[in-house]
Amino acid sequence: MSKIKRVVIVGGTHGNEITGIYLVKKFERSPDLIQRSSFESVTLIGNPQACAIGKRYVDTDLNRCFLSQDLENPSLTSYEAQQAKIIHQTFGFQGSQPADFVIDLHSSTANMGLSIILGNENLLNISLAAYLTSINPKVKILYSTSQHKVRPHLDSICEFGCTLEVGAVAQNVLDAALFQETEAIIQEILDYLEAYNQGTPPLTKDTINVYHSIETIDYPRNELGEIQAMIHPQLQFKDYQPLHPGEPMFLTFEGKEIVYDGELTVYPVFINEAAYYEKAIAMCITQLSHRKVNSQ
Amino acid sequence: MSKIKRVVIVGGTHGNEITGIYLVKKFERSPDLIQRSSFESVTLIGNPQACAIGKRYVDTDLNRCFLSQDLENPSLTSYEAQQAKIIHQTFGFQGSQPADFVIDLHSSTANMGLSIILGNENLLNISLAAYLTSINPKVKILYSTSQHKVRPHLDSICEFGCTLEVGAVAQNVLDAALFQETEAIIQEILDYLEAYNQGTPPLTKDTINVYHSIETIDYPRNELGEIQAMIHPQLQFKDYQPLHPGEPMFLTFEGKEIVYDGELTVYPVFINEAAYYEKAIAMCITQLSHRKVNSQ
Repeated sequence: MSKIKRVVIVGGTHGNEITGIYLVKKFERSPDLIQRSSFESVTLIGNPQACAIGKRYVDTDLNRCFLSQDLENPSLTSYEAQQAKIIHQTFGFQGSQPADFVIDLHSSTANMGLSIILGNENLLNISLAAYLTSINPKVKILYSTSQHKVRPHLDSICEFGCTLEVGAVAQNVLDAALFQETEAIIQEILDYLEAYNQGTPPLTKDTINVYHSIETIDYPRNELGEIQAMIHPQLQFKDYQPLHPGEPMFLTFEGKEIVYDGELTVYPVFINEAAYYEKAIAMCITQLSHRKVNSQ
Repeated sequence: MSKIKRVVIVGGTHGNEITGIYLVKKFERSPDLIQRSSFESVTLIGNPQACAIGKRYVDTDLNRCFLSQDLENPSLTSYEAQQAKIIHQTFGFQGSQPADFVIDLHSSTANMGLSIILGNENLLNISLAAYLTSINPKVKILYSTSQHKVRPHLDSICEFGCTLEVGAVAQNVLDAALFQETEAIIQEILDYLEAYNQGTPPLTKDTINVYHSIETIDYPRNELGEIQAMIHPQLQFKDYQPLHPGEPMFLTFEGKEIVYDGELTVYPVFINEAAYYEKAIAMCITQLSHRKVNSQ
């Protein structure tokens, strides 16, 4: 495989996920922190206007604006659609400064711990994720690949890279421990890429646990679309833990339990993410698999 | 003292604190839950436009709009200034449906537990708060009285009442356990007021712990007003716990500890409240006192 020549570190793709914004600001004050001898590191605030107003987005979710057909569609003129085109024209495959690796920094009100979200299963991404889990047991690997292999996320501008999703932390709040843990992961990623470029990537485990997104589940709603139940207290903050058939999932405002009626044990993530109420997502359901690192 | 004839339960004074909003909606679906024989209970969504857009406010913080001079100032025409005037004209001392007791429902990203915030120390408020702490050890009593005895908060439209501040919960997130605990406190308050009206208020402890707000502390900032440090991990979520001189308070982005340099042990609250970054408040400092319930 060819070497990594440019790494782009993105914060503020969502304007109210401020861990990434303040990390990018720190790296811009002290660029030495992210430089390595074998590649260039660049920082980017993904959605500056959303950051300025402390909201996820201005017009629409920037992290759903990167489908090819949307990037090529001149009739899409929202602020975020335009911002996505600029980012793609700059750092995309055929951009003016093409990125070889993207790290997109996010945070969640769900208890995502330190999640590495991968949009594809190429060997570099898998090996890197395996390495990160081997040095930090808090790291989880989440695949968000879709059936159609097209994803609208910012990190899809580049074959290599990942989204870091850390939590639980409220929107527009800095949690110092998570800030430092996120920074440490970025440093480990950069060190790994340096070693990779030098032909000496560190050895990792042969087999890793991978959580694969298979579907989303919405809140129970009435005919007006109003939610009728909350995440059950037994499920709150239990991201990546097994949910067995028959276990409680929701609690109605009147106190009635609603159980998980699937047939398989699953592993919910993004449980009670604030930004997903409007997306009709109470949680994402994943399946756990054990994957050999060296098989593609 | 005269009897309580009308209780007003307010949710959505801040549009992104949705525990109160969904409680008010529940009470509006099932008004029997809040009715008692000796008084009328009324519900109110304080800031409907802010609720509709999921933000704390549209133009300005509604819960800072209730100073007398502002309510009487015709030149204040923001959405929230107008909303405050309407609420005051309806439920204020001389309103069309004057409230005798107000319960204003809030939530916080700080670990406020179940806080009863009192704006004055009249005997009914104190006795009620003492009762609530006696039946639920998670309840804390916080005085937010000011030197000048004027407060801009919604609950100041009425001599009797309180603000309930529950947390930690992210903005625009429902936490089912906190929802149920808040509802239980509202029920206890209504039952207490019913017993009070009937001349048989339940006995309470003689002495209560009261946390009295004395000052606020801002984040360290640079000359541009940008914050330079985060709440220290050792202080995060430690609301109502003692902070001794010399103990860590902030952590800079570069990892340097900043300690509390006061001379007295204090009890910080509202630590890392998301909505207070813009108010230049990293935390509110309180002093703990032990107060006799029957002395005014």
